[in-house]
Amino acid sequence: MKSIQSTHCHVHFQENAYSQLNNYLASNKHSLIFILVDENTNRDCLAKLMSQMATDLTIEIIEIESGEINKTLETCTGLWNVLTELGADRKSLMINLGGGVITDMGGFVASTFKRGISFINVPTTLLSMVDASVGGKTGVDLGVLKNQIGIFSDPEMVLIDTEFLKTVSSEEMISGTAEIIKHGLIYDRDLYNDVRNNNLKNVKYLIHRSVEIKNDVVLKDQKESSLRKILNYGHTIGHAVESCFLESDQKKTLTHGQAISLGMVAEAYISHKLFGFPKEILQDLKSYVIDLFGKVPVAPEDYPTVFDYLKHDKKNIGGQVNFVLLEDIEKFKIDCKVDIQLIEESINYYLS
Amino acid sequence: MKSIQSTHCHVHFQENAYSQLNNYLASNKHSLIFILVDENTNRDCLAKLMSQMATDLTIEIIEIESGEINKTLETCTGLWNVLTELGADRKSLMINLGGGVITDMGGFVASTFKRGISFINVPTTLLSMVDASVGGKTGVDLGVLKNQIGIFSDPEMVLIDTEFLKTVSSEEMISGTAEIIKHGLIYDRDLYNDVRNNNLKNVKYLIHRSVEIKNDVVLKDQKESSLRKILNYGHTIGHAVESCFLESDQKKTLTHGQAISLGMVAEAYISHKLFGFPKEILQDLKSYVIDLFGKVPVAPEDYPTVFDYLKHDKKNIGGQVNFVLLEDIEKFKIDCKVDIQLIEESINYYLS
Repeated sequence: MKSIQSTHCHVHFQENAYSQLNNYLASNKHSLIFILVDENTNRDCLAKLMSQMATDLTIEIIEIESGEINKTLETCTGLWNVLTELGADRKSLMINLGGGVITDMGGFVASTFKRGISFINVPTTLLSMVDASVGGKTGVDLGVLKNQIGIFSDPEMVLIDTEFLKTVSSEEMISGTAEIIKHGLIYDRDLYNDVRNNNLKNVKYLIHRSVEIKNDVVLKDQKESSLRKILNYGHTIGHAVESCFLESDQKKTLTHGQAISLGMVAEAYISHKLFGFPKEILQDLKSYVIDLFGKVPVAPEDYPTVFDYLKHDKKNIGGQVNFVLLEDIEKFKIDCKVDIQLIEESINYYLS
Repeated sequence: MKSIQSTHCHVHFQENAYSQLNNYLASNKHSLIFILVDENTNRDCLAKLMSQMATDLTIEIIEIESGEINKTLETCTGLWNVLTELGADRKSLMINLGGGVITDMGGFVASTFKRGISFINVPTTLLSMVDASVGGKTGVDLGVLKNQIGIFSDPEMVLIDTEFLKTVSSEEMISGTAEIIKHGLIYDRDLYNDVRNNNLKNVKYLIHRSVEIKNDVVLKDQKESSLRKILNYGHTIGHAVESCFLESDQKKTLTHGQAISLGMVAEAYISHKLFGFPKEILQDLKSYVIDLFGKVPVAPEDYPTVFDYLKHDKKNIGGQVNFVLLEDIEKFKIDCKVDIQLIEESINYYLS
C-alpha cells in the first residue's frame, strides 16, 4: 500500500512499514529505544513489533494501564520519571504502540521530555489508525476535559499494520468506524457510501483513504486555524457528552465512537435546520449509527452538564460555541454559531 | 534602543516596548488577556505595565508564589485549571511578567494549553532579561531536575524595560550578572571586559549585547543540536550543584548566578587542563566571581550527589557528560567528554 507523506512525517503501511522503520533506525543514531505499551499491546502486539525490528540498541519497555481514565498529567509525571531513571537522553527514541491514549500521551511525553525527543506511532486500534496517530496532535486530559493540555508535534513516522486489528475487540472496531464515517461525511461521498454499505469489509481501503483525507486537511492547516476544524465534525457535541459520561459515577463510560456517533447525528440535524442538509441522509445516518453504536443513553437532566462542557470546547472563541456544519456530504461550513435551544433540539432528535 | 529580531519574535527595549505591545494588541484579535505575576511583580511591576497598555479587552491577573521551588508541574496544573475556569480560549493572550520562573513556566503553560495560546514575555529581573526570556526555551522542573519538562516555543515578543530592575534585590542583580559574564566568555571579549571592569555601570549595553549574542546563537541553532550548546557554558557543573543544593534540607538554595559562577570557574579549569585556556584569565575569573558571588559552600561529601545529577544533564548522549569548553575567550569547543576525576579536581580548584 502506498505510503502517505504527512506534515513532517510519513505514514507507512503493512509490510513496508517495518522496512521503513529499520531504515530509519539504521540511519539515525539513537542512544536508547523506549516502547510505550499498555497491558493489552504488551501481551498482543509487542512480540510482533520486536520481531520485525533490526537494531542493536537497548530497548526498554514501559507499560501503563490502558484506558482514557489514565490519560492524565499524573501518568505523564510517572512516565517522565521513569524515562529519567532509565537514562533517557535527547537522542532516545520513543515508540508508542497502542490506541489513541498511548499515541496521544506518548507523543506529549516525548515532545516535552528535555524539550523533545523523537517518537514513532504504531497504532493498534482502528480509531488510532484512522485518526489519533496522524496529524501531530498530542495531549492529555485535564480532569474530564479531553486533550486540554498538549501540543502539536509530529512523530518521525507512523506505521500502520492492520494485522494488529485482530487483537482488538469488536467494540473497539465499531468505535473506530465513527471517524471513518466522519471523514466520509466531510470530505468523500464514496468513502461514506462504502463504510455505510459494506461496514468494514474493505478496511484497508477505509484506513488508507481516511489517512489520506486527514493528511490532506492537516497539510493545508496544521494548527487548526481554519480548514482543519472540519475534522471536528460531530466532536463538538460528541466531546461534551463524552466528558459528561466520564464525569458521572452512575454512567458507563462511552467509547469515543459512541460519543461521536451521537454528535454526528445531532450536528447533522443542526445542519439540516440551518443549512438544508438533506433530510433523507440525516434520517438514514441516524438509523445507521444507532443500529451500529446503540443509542447513547443521554438524558434531559444531563443537558446542563453537556452545555457546560460545550463552553470549554477548544474551538470556542470569546465564549461562543463554534460548530462545523454541513450543507451536504462534502460541503462543510466552519465557525458556525448555534443557539443553545437548537443544540437541545438536536439531541432530542437523536433520542427520538 | 534598537529592537532585536529573534527567532520568530522581536525583542523591544524601553519606551519602544510599550508602543510595540499596543500595536500588537491592536492588530491581533485576542479574546482575553491574562497577566501572570508573582507576589513581587504584582506589587512592584504590574501597575506600570497596566498603565502602558491600551486595550479594551478584559485583563485577568493570575498570581503564583515566587521561587524556583514552585516551578513545578503541580503549579502548571493549577494554572491550567485557573485558565479553564476563567474561560481562556485559543485566542487568549498570556503576558508573563516576572523573572525566569514566570517566563519559563508561563511560556510552557501557554504553549501547552489547548495545544498552544500566544504569550509575551516581560522580564523584570536581570537574569530573565539577559537569558530566560529570549530563545524560546520554556519548561518546568521535575523534582530537582531543572527544566526537565518543556518545549521550544517562541513568545510573540519580549519587552525589556530596565526600569523594572529598580524593583529587584541586589542579590538578584548579581545573579543575573553571571549570564552576562558567560556571554562575554563564550562570544565577546569586550562584553566580558566591560562587566568585569565596570560591573553593571553600563547595564543597558550589557543587556542589549547579551540579547544580541544569545539571539545570534539561537538563530543559528534553535533546537540546540550544535552551536546553541555554547550557551550552556558553566551550566553543566553549575546545574548539578544547583540541584544538589535544592535537594538538600541543610543547604541554603543557591541563586542561579551563584551556581553558574562556580560552574564557569570549574569549567574554565577543565578548559585550561584540556585546551590550554589561559591560566591568568582562569585565576582572574576565579577571584572575580568569588568576590562577586561569594564562595559556594559545596563540600567533598556533596560530590557523589553532584556527579549523579551530571548524569541527568540534558546535553548528555549515551550516558556521557557533554561539556562546552574554551580554548580562550570567544574560542569555544562543544561536545567535550571529561573524566569524572578532572571534574572533581575542577571543583577542588574552585574551593582552593
